[in-house]
Amino acid sequence: MRIAILLYNGIAALDAIGPYEVLSRLPGAEVIHVGERRGEVRTSAGSLGLTVDAELADVPAPDIIVVPGGPGQADLMREGPVHEWLRAADTTSTWTTAVCTGSLIVAAAGLLRGRRATSHWLALGNLRALGAVPCEERVVFDGKYVTAAGVSSGIDMALALAGRIVGDKAAQEIQLMIEYDPQPPYSAGSPATASADAVAALRARSRFATRPR
Amino acid sequence: MRIAILLYNGIAALDAIGPYEVLSRLPGAEVIHVGERRGEVRTSAGSLGLTVDAELADVPAPDIIVVPGGPGQADLMREGPVHEWLRAADTTSTWTTAVCTGSLIVAAAGLLRGRRATSHWLALGNLRALGAVPCEERVVFDGKYVTAAGVSSGIDMALALAGRIVGDKAAQEIQLMIEYDPQPPYSAGSPATASADAVAALRARSRFATRPR
Repeated sequence: MRIAILLYNGIAALDAIGPYEVLSRLPGAEVIHVGERRGEVRTSAGSLGLTVDAELADVPAPDIIVVPGGPGQADLMREGPVHEWLRAADTTSTWTTAVCTGSLIVAAAGLLRGRRATSHWLALGNLRALGAVPCEERVVFDGKYVTAAGVSSGIDMALALAGRIVGDKAAQEIQLMIEYDPQPPYSAGSPATASADAVAALRARSRFATRPR
Repeated sequence: MRIAILLYNGIAALDAIGPYEVLSRLPGAEVIHVGERRGEVRTSAGSLGLTVDAELADVPAPDIIVVPGGPGQADLMREGPVHEWLRAADTTSTWTTAVCTGSLIVAAAGLLRGRRATSHWLALGNLRALGAVPCEERVVFDGKYVTAAGVSSGIDMALALAGRIVGDKAAQEIQLMIEYDPQPPYSAGSPATASADAVAALRARSRFATRPR
């Protein structure tokens, strides 16, 4: 089972590493970090480098595609090699998935038209503008298309996906191994539970891009 | 505020990236990924490369030290440059922290003697053998020493730490930005809630090392 995780400059690290930590533990999984060019990309905050091990053309037919989000998403809204790869790989993938604003890239490539999907809570309107049907859920399955909400939600998505692929028992063992028994110190993780002030502050700072730049 | 995250071969990626994703969002934070040698390290599953941007000697006095765990921890139990750096940096750090089996490294360096601390649930006995007082809690504060349970717990630790450093309001904004509203599909994340079968299966596979190898 080949799992291709797309990396690019300006990615939010946890968007990629949440699914990686879960999916790399699937029996028989081969995870490959792909990108436009081999070598290092830097994450959104700039202070972490991740390695692209294979070019897109080297992994034309992964079983699972994972498209993480992050501010660099805005650079991948334009028609180009990433969109071409996504569309081609999607024709044979078993699962096509995205975390956070990764779903905007997948939607811009034309793969979520009319499909139920989610994204970072600040980007749901942008997802609608790209032809998807946005859902305020943490993980959304629509056929083989699986999308997750903001940043940390990729862990929940990957565990749900692991359950579909290897069954509940094996997925639960992965959850226990990564000790995913979350105990956030606050219940501020969603706009439904955070303070109105926090929601307003983040809305004011938000600048997700749906158009090519 | 300088935050040094230790990277090494065989690290569990999420151990490092959970805290990174939270702490890099602190106002004024400068995160530096440090290691014995500049360049790439590979994570435990082998299929992800992370970049060490600075050698240990380049970052002698970080405000926050983060020591992630992972199978490669076993190679860092021996007296050597990492232990020397940890002890020296600890003399001036504001917070010395560890995730998962990272606490075994910190304990082996002699910094957790008699202190309350935690680790991956499979490694609590090893932590005791190294002179710490193991606690079955997800995040443990003992003065400036902060430790977290397995792999994914670094997110909870970093949010709790963010609250102490910048206050609840700013920490809650970080939580909302990374949409940390966890909804695991199973309640199998702790040995207290997982099936007895899952606990037994993982115990049988466990081989944490406390001795130098």
